[in-house]
Amino acid sequence: MAKDAPIIAVDVMGGDFGPSVCVPGAVDAARAGKFKVLLVGRHDAVAAELAKLNPAGVDVETVHAGEVAEMDEKPSEILRRKKDASIQVACRLVKEGRADGIVSPGHSGATVACGMFIMGRIAGVERPALASIMPTEKNPMVLLDVGANVDCKPHHLLQFGLMANAFARDMLDLPVPRLGLLSIGEEEGKGNTLVKEAYELLKLVENLNFVGNVEGRDIFTGDVDVIVCDGFVGNVALKLSEGLATSIARILKRELLGSPVAKLGAFLSKGAFKRFARFVDYAEYGGAPLLGLNGIAVVAHGRSNAKAVASATRMAATFVRKGTYERLVEAISQNEELTRYGKAIK
Amino acid sequence: MAKDAPIIAVDVMGGDFGPSVCVPGAVDAARAGKFKVLLVGRHDAVAAELAKLNPAGVDVETVHAGEVAEMDEKPSEILRRKKDASIQVACRLVKEGRADGIVSPGHSGATVACGMFIMGRIAGVERPALASIMPTEKNPMVLLDVGANVDCKPHHLLQFGLMANAFARDMLDLPVPRLGLLSIGEEEGKGNTLVKEAYELLKLVENLNFVGNVEGRDIFTGDVDVIVCDGFVGNVALKLSEGLATSIARILKRELLGSPVAKLGAFLSKGAFKRFARFVDYAEYGGAPLLGLNGIAVVAHGRSNAKAVASATRMAATFVRKGTYERLVEAISQNEELTRYGKAIK
Repeated sequence: MAKDAPIIAVDVMGGDFGPSVCVPGAVDAARAGKFKVLLVGRHDAVAAELAKLNPAGVDVETVHAGEVAEMDEKPSEILRRKKDASIQVACRLVKEGRADGIVSPGHSGATVACGMFIMGRIAGVERPALASIMPTEKNPMVLLDVGANVDCKPHHLLQFGLMANAFARDMLDLPVPRLGLLSIGEEEGKGNTLVKEAYELLKLVENLNFVGNVEGRDIFTGDVDVIVCDGFVGNVALKLSEGLATSIARILKRELLGSPVAKLGAFLSKGAFKRFARFVDYAEYGGAPLLGLNGIAVVAHGRSNAKAVASATRMAATFVRKGTYERLVEAISQNEELTRYGKAIK
Repeated sequence: MAKDAPIIAVDVMGGDFGPSVCVPGAVDAARAGKFKVLLVGRHDAVAAELAKLNPAGVDVETVHAGEVAEMDEKPSEILRRKKDASIQVACRLVKEGRADGIVSPGHSGATVACGMFIMGRIAGVERPALASIMPTEKNPMVLLDVGANVDCKPHHLLQFGLMANAFARDMLDLPVPRLGLLSIGEEEGKGNTLVKEAYELLKLVENLNFVGNVEGRDIFTGDVDVIVCDGFVGNVALKLSEGLATSIARILKRELLGSPVAKLGAFLSKGAFKRFARFVDYAEYGGAPLLGLNGIAVVAHGRSNAKAVASATRMAATFVRKGTYERLVEAISQNEELTRYGKAIK
């Protein structure tokens, strides 16, 4: 069950900035969180980055991986042809029991593929789902799936809900998360065929605080803790949110620097803007957990800086310490019949 | 073809505020745009609002409709049981040639149903689509479908693209709009099954500036003029955008009023904030055109104020003056074979 001394394998070759941000990020997380990290990547590249740091007293070990998964390579190709890619090596460390979880920035498709076929899935889980922790006006909330599954069946959404509920309890410290289904109207019966059928399944789950349909505008109010959707819709929603927040910030900046008086005003308000910027700063959370695998996996943003990698690594360790994996296994097995029912009607 | 003196039927009973905003909005639009409006609704309610205005010199006429479509009524019920509902009466005015187009705030489902079955569809169009004009960092862009069709086939998305392209040329004054398909990766082959198949069709259209897949983050940069998606995804995207913009504005306000210095700063910057607020103000555009009907139809936001109704009414008149309807007819008929091909392969 929950383990006090997690070991997290970090794929330091991933993301836009590779070892230069992943090594310091992972080392910082291990130092602050008092757990062990395995730095998976090319020996020389890792050593060069470690030499710039002072890792004394930090429980860190390098595991060599000679290849790197490139962003433009197909997940299936990486899985088949690059046996020594850092993401594959990291997944094997979990499979062999040498690590409890992996963190990889960047290529989420490769992480899904290698995770599914090397680490394996929790018994009964058909599709692992990628969860994103989103800022809201109140507390953070969990949106999933944000891109692992683009064509879903109703029982997939059911399982996403079960896993996200277990996850949110641990990660957001909520005993009874409010769980909504993303749709285009609040009333039961609104939505596309997939959502209407998933609604029927979710309302049958015992011990789930299913609040029904929620709309796009409900993501950021903070009145719901988990929102379930298919991976196509979730990915559009996630990227749209990032894009809109960035555009709004840019427009505001342009307006504020447009006149000397407005500029002075902006200078006086700069503390407020700093706190505001935190709302749109993904590095605060940094990681998208991939739920449903046999082990912990956290995908960090491709543009991750060291802070974001540290945050994702810390998240993976917390996951291990709280025994979240075991809770996911339990949630899926307790609702096995309902999953089978969902498969049978669709 | 294009008509210099449009007649627009405005369903003044719709929306959250009914005649109190629809009558002044419609009258303002007719005065400024020098065209005729038919105010469709209960005689007494319209007369009461007209009495508060000075409609002298404005070409305005009241057409009585004894019933009102309520927001919680199903479109099919309104269509079947409320023959005298203002939205039905307005659609009949177009069918009978007494008006060129309708404007209705609020119940978009009822407008779609009454529009399809009373006004009828353009020959060859299977599904009318609701288009939303969205603000971006540069010029406004068109997103569709934003909610008329929750379960789509690839050839529906093809037709949405054809119509939106014709529409954007006229409404945004763009000779060659850049048209993108909303997906979760820019490369061809990314997306769900629907999007991948729609991509195959869109790239076969002649005289279409199809730029390929775009992502959620591309909506607001202004680098593309039209984005096509199914009505479920589009509606989620639209409501998410409204919700996020509102939440960001609220958080910013809270931060800026949090300390006296920040407050003074915000006061000095207030001109900049005003211009910024216009970015998130839907009343600037006000109307979502429903494309594919035999006649013009513009759905205004349920929360529309008089300014938004005026803007939607002005949009409908522009639509008539520019002959946009005829261009939609042409775009659909010129690609009839491609639509049939799309239906055959799916």
